[in-house]
Amino acid sequence: MQALENHPPTDPLQDLTMALRQFAQARDWEQFHTPKNLACALSVEAAELLEHFQWLTDAQSQALTSDKKNQVAAEAADVLLYLLQLCDRLGIDLVAAAQQKMLRNAEKYPVASARGSAKKYTEI
Amino acid sequence: MQALENHPPTDPLQDLTMALRQFAQARDWEQFHTPKNLACALSVEAAELLEHFQWLTDAQSQALTSDKKNQVAAEAADVLLYLLQLCDRLGIDLVAAAQQKMLRNAEKYPVASARGSAKKYTEI
Amino acid sequence: MQALENHPPTDPLQDLTMALRQFAQARDWEQFHTPKNLACALSVEAAELLEHFQWLTDAQSQALTSDKKNQVAAEAADVLLYLLQLCDRLGIDLVAAAQQKMLRNAEKYPVASARGSAKKYTEI
Amino acid sequence: MQALENHPPTDPLQDLTMALRQFAQARDWEQFHTPKNLACALSVEAAELLEHFQWLTDAQSQALTSDKKNQVAAEAADVLLYLLQLCDRLGIDLVAAAQQKMLRNAEKYPVASARGSAKKYTEI
Repeated sequence: MQALENHPPTDPLQDLTMALRQFAQARDWEQFHTPKNLACALSVEAAELLEHFQWLTDAQSQALTSDKKNQVAAEAADVLLYLLQLCDRLGIDLVAAAQQKMLRNAEKYPVASARGSAKKYTEI
Repeated sequence: MQALENHPPTDPLQDLTMALRQFAQARDWEQFHTPKNLACALSVEAAELLEHFQWLTDAQSQALTSDKKNQVAAEAADVLLYLLQLCDRLGIDLVAAAQQKMLRNAEKYPVASARGSAKKYTEI
Repeated sequence: MQALENHPPTDPLQDLTMALRQFAQARDWEQFHTPKNLACALSVEAAELLEHFQWLTDAQSQALTSDKKNQVAAEAADVLLYLLQLCDRLGIDLVAAAQQKMLRNAEKYPVASARGSAKKYTEI
Repeated sequence: MQALENHPPTDPLQDLTMALRQFAQARDWEQFHTPKNLACALSVEAAELLEHFQWLTDAQSQALTSDKKNQVAAEAADVLLYLLQLCDRLGIDLVAAAQQKMLRNAEKYPVASARGSAKKYTEI
């Protein structure tokens, strides 16, 4: 208890960010990690994730085998890891940005008008 | 203090995931959120983030104006929000997957051999 | 007839490539058109095309309105234009590469074994 | 000569489109080739092309080895092949769309104002 009060539980994203920093530093890979390169890598990993779904029907995409789910999880991890590194390099607070975006989305798509019409989806 | 001990600090990603669920439910948007569609949306948002960097030099990408940084943060938020929704739909523990991936990367790229050669980057 | 023999019909892709070169030169935009930047732009445009389909069912994607079809055509055009510029910068003969790829695909997926099993699609 | 006059040179993109149709038909793969799936595949291939460039400097991206250039050419071919199939499925005349886009770009970015400022690139 005492320990817990003195050492509050850490934020897992913060922990990952620190681990990624050390990982890159130890390998002298920071030179490759410009924001532009990390943005490229993020897009590439997102596409690798999409590749798993490209020929599936919606129904099939909801009934992945456990093996396939693990492969998708590994790609999702890559997306998160590059996203964290990009935000770290740019000084972006990712969680705060996501919370702010949710507030903006709530204003943009009020339940009353969004419900039913679902314009966002059919008129994009 | 009492309150803190009884209500441990919550995980921000867990909070966002719950908020996203309620957001979609309230608007009857779950029908659109198949894993396949969310994977498409994730790729699209990652590309929107990349768009901000596509014509910049590496140097320019490291010296974004505050306005541009806010735009990039909003795209990074979109990437995270779709990634969380995808993992929620598939029952993937994103943080656990990311931690596992970091362990695998540490094995795959030992400091001794990765340092200097940087094969990963020059021979992909 | 005489005219036709002296001025053989030109290749539309070659014509587009030449027009793109002149377009970039006239605006002094060649400095931005490194292969890396063009590869980024290509990915971004492909995602903009995908955006039109991300929330559609397969059935809806086969019954686009004429207005939506025009929007998709404009994105398809952007993809082609960046692809041509990238190949021009790298000295790649795009049509020859595509013909070669078709030959390789024919070897890789013989009709007898590919038909029915469709492994490529379900086991990627 | 006689032969040439009777059998005018065919359009290579038209030839590729016909070959792609036959290829898919022979393998009973048309069921997978919905416009939505083809748009996904196009994005995935564009990202595979980008992957070759993600860690390169601009200078390195302009000095690819012959082996790397062949790999990029194979990815460029994949992009073109999916783009042609998508346009075929949607009844889009790709070359006409590209020509139209070039006219629109010429109006959008007049030489006089585009030259020098290069706003398109620095203010996206």
